[in-house]
Amino acid sequence: MTALPAAFLDSAKSVLGPKGWSEDAEKLNEVASPWRGIWPGETPFLAMPGSTEEAASLVKLCAEHRVALVPQGGNTGLVDGGTPHGEITVSMRRMNKVRALDTLNNSLTIEAGAPLVNAQTAADEANRLFPLSLGSEGQATIGGLISTNAGGVAVLRYGMMRDLILGLEVVLPSGEIWDGLSGLRKNNTGYDLKHLFAGAEGTLGLITAATLKLFPKVAKATAWVICETPQNVVDLLALTRDHAGDTVTSFEIIPANAIEMVQKDVPDTRDPAPSPLPWRVLIEVSMAREDQARETLMSALSDALEKGLADNAIIAESGQQAESFWHIRETIPLSKRAYGTAVNHDVAVPVSAIPDFLAATKAEIQKVVSEADIVAFGHVGDGNLHYSACEPKGAADSKLSNHAGEITRIVHEQAMRFGGSISAEHGVGRLKRDELAGIRPKAATDTMRAIKTALDPLGIMNPGRVVSV
Amino acid sequence: MTALPAAFLDSAKSVLGPKGWSEDAEKLNEVASPWRGIWPGETPFLAMPGSTEEAASLVKLCAEHRVALVPQGGNTGLVDGGTPHGEITVSMRRMNKVRALDTLNNSLTIEAGAPLVNAQTAADEANRLFPLSLGSEGQATIGGLISTNAGGVAVLRYGMMRDLILGLEVVLPSGEIWDGLSGLRKNNTGYDLKHLFAGAEGTLGLITAATLKLFPKVAKATAWVICETPQNVVDLLALTRDHAGDTVTSFEIIPANAIEMVQKDVPDTRDPAPSPLPWRVLIEVSMAREDQARETLMSALSDALEKGLADNAIIAESGQQAESFWHIRETIPLSKRAYGTAVNHDVAVPVSAIPDFLAATKAEIQKVVSEADIVAFGHVGDGNLHYSACEPKGAADSKLSNHAGEITRIVHEQAMRFGGSISAEHGVGRLKRDELAGIRPKAATDTMRAIKTALDPLGIMNPGRVVSV
Repeated sequence: MTALPAAFLDSAKSVLGPKGWSEDAEKLNEVASPWRGIWPGETPFLAMPGSTEEAASLVKLCAEHRVALVPQGGNTGLVDGGTPHGEITVSMRRMNKVRALDTLNNSLTIEAGAPLVNAQTAADEANRLFPLSLGSEGQATIGGLISTNAGGVAVLRYGMMRDLILGLEVVLPSGEIWDGLSGLRKNNTGYDLKHLFAGAEGTLGLITAATLKLFPKVAKATAWVICETPQNVVDLLALTRDHAGDTVTSFEIIPANAIEMVQKDVPDTRDPAPSPLPWRVLIEVSMAREDQARETLMSALSDALEKGLADNAIIAESGQQAESFWHIRETIPLSKRAYGTAVNHDVAVPVSAIPDFLAATKAEIQKVVSEADIVAFGHVGDGNLHYSACEPKGAADSKLSNHAGEITRIVHEQAMRFGGSISAEHGVGRLKRDELAGIRPKAATDTMRAIKTALDPLGIMNPGRVVSV
Repeated sequence: MTALPAAFLDSAKSVLGPKGWSEDAEKLNEVASPWRGIWPGETPFLAMPGSTEEAASLVKLCAEHRVALVPQGGNTGLVDGGTPHGEITVSMRRMNKVRALDTLNNSLTIEAGAPLVNAQTAADEANRLFPLSLGSEGQATIGGLISTNAGGVAVLRYGMMRDLILGLEVVLPSGEIWDGLSGLRKNNTGYDLKHLFAGAEGTLGLITAATLKLFPKVAKATAWVICETPQNVVDLLALTRDHAGDTVTSFEIIPANAIEMVQKDVPDTRDPAPSPLPWRVLIEVSMAREDQARETLMSALSDALEKGLADNAIIAESGQQAESFWHIRETIPLSKRAYGTAVNHDVAVPVSAIPDFLAATKAEIQKVVSEADIVAFGHVGDGNLHYSACEPKGAADSKLSNHAGEITRIVHEQAMRFGGSISAEHGVGRLKRDELAGIRPKAATDTMRAIKTALDPLGIMNPGRVVSV
């Protein structure tokens, strides 16, 4: 790391105040270490602005002294987007207040450093729902979730994070503040800047606050369904939506071998309905009235059993039972990690292409490592699969890690072949930047570069992430 | 108009083929005349590309010869955005094919020149729903609706047009084609370009096709409700959503004086429930099962009557009766025009601010023209009101038109005072460009200009609309 200009450091410390910065080696190391323990980074200075004005003054200093910065939220990213590699780190976690909640307008204004759970709780206390939900909701922050356009388990019904924002407050690369906070649902007053900052992973500006959409609270009915084939699963989705319309909130696929992994990792996990068939589906229908949700889900599942799309189905009798279904689903990523080497991917294909994608990809991978165990799980309702090739059962030594690059090439090639995406909900960061530049139409990459250069001409905002310029 | 370079004309005609262009005075006049008959424009040349490749070749020629172009769809815009003022006109109406429909993936790929009704019909025939709905759906095209980010009567449930697109195909100002058509619901692979072109009113590129989201078909329950005050109306919205969750699809406010206007214009119009109270609400709840939708709406309305939020409520007994309710709502704009001078606005405020906005704005306007008749109707569910000051009843001569500028200033000032927008769903065009540049934060306008300059450095794409550079 090159040393920071002393004039910058002095001014930054004075702008941020004594609570607003650190040069403590342990703290610097903590923010430079992403939670998966890979891509360890380094950072010479940690800024922790306590207000939008402090953040703006800091960015102005960065512009003046040509100091690059990496914005950081909960540090839970999966694509090396928020880990500093020599840049200063701007942690937003001190800015975590709820600024306003309007129940009649169904909107919540909250600062970027608040963890997702704070938004969920604030909504809940006002008898409203903030629907985004994902495994890391206790750590992942609103600003980070917007910057990465996070997904999660309710996208089928409510959309991605970008679909849940009404307005943003952003510090631009010049240090100017754009106050685009707004509770309006209709506001056609020029280019939609909030959608440009959402998903830009901090490369175009530093998000400091957001106005989020709230929804009416809904009651859930949850089912655990056994299916024989991926085609059954996809057809079951269509059938469930025929019965329930867009009140189908979650539709998650779980392979039998993932349940075995979870049971090995967390021994008291009970399989809700043991079966030799290879696929399970976790379905959640949510409606204002619990009786309607339950009745609707039951009629869909009766129809599915009758039509042979499902072999067995259990509707949770209690919130606790529903949670036990979800617990299995949410434990898969950690149990998979405990299990052994895995080559992981986050891909999406059109829902209709899922069966063919699964068959073709497995066949290609097993040509390379014949005994590789495939664990494909996740958000089949929106075509997004977390796709891993795992160590064969009981394998002592890893053949897999020798072939990681080749396996990833296969998974990505197959996703693209079916009109899919190699980066569904985790983003680009530094991890997928160059691979995506090769896959994406050149016209798109050129346009992204033109935007980056126009809005951040000095290249100080999270440089090298998303697109190289 | 300055004459077009002969070399451009020759090449353009050759690229477009005999069906693809016109210099016929009548045709040129037609495309230069917006349907409201105001802002008559002029254009030296009409291009009608029949394919994306033809459109791309044309734009390439425009770039080469520095010829500015105005993209045009159904020519139903309300803000002087698609009317040529000396530029050549590129009508997209020959490109109107359905390219693909995937029922399992719930997606429809359709060309930009297809009228909205074609997308609705294609979806319907596949037992799916394309939910965007508005008065001009027979003429307004998919490309125009995306470019203006159209709204309509189902935004409360399904969002604006931008929320309904999965992918776009766009001819960039260089003449390159960006093939961003995709049926994916999750695709975090860089800046979200589709959201940049959506709402840009053709100033950043020419949209040639789109992949749209389809939804499960739903059954409707429709009610006509009498309310005493705007506060009752807003509270009724919250109560209805408590009962029905987000299955409330439409929630439209209609003032009693608008019904009088419709009845005067269309004499056989029957008022569904005559009442001396000043407000009506048209509510639509839609769910997969008609019995559930009806039962839910009934329980909400019983509760509202009991709590005194509504004075009377009728649930339509048939599709025909529901249509008769909607017919009144949809006829207001035309009847208002037939009635006499009106100063019209398209504003939005947070839903919670509607009662205070209505009271304050009427009081301020009546200070200027004491007897002005206020007609405020529309999408109260998402805070968007079409707000008109109309000729007083029986007034022979118009005091109103002498004060049009002042009235508009008042309406816009009051909208902004309540955190609102002066351009909710109709867009910017040339009509509101300069006013918005004065209202919008300078940081936002600067950012928009930087984007326009970066992506259209020659300034040939619909110049002078949205932002001046």
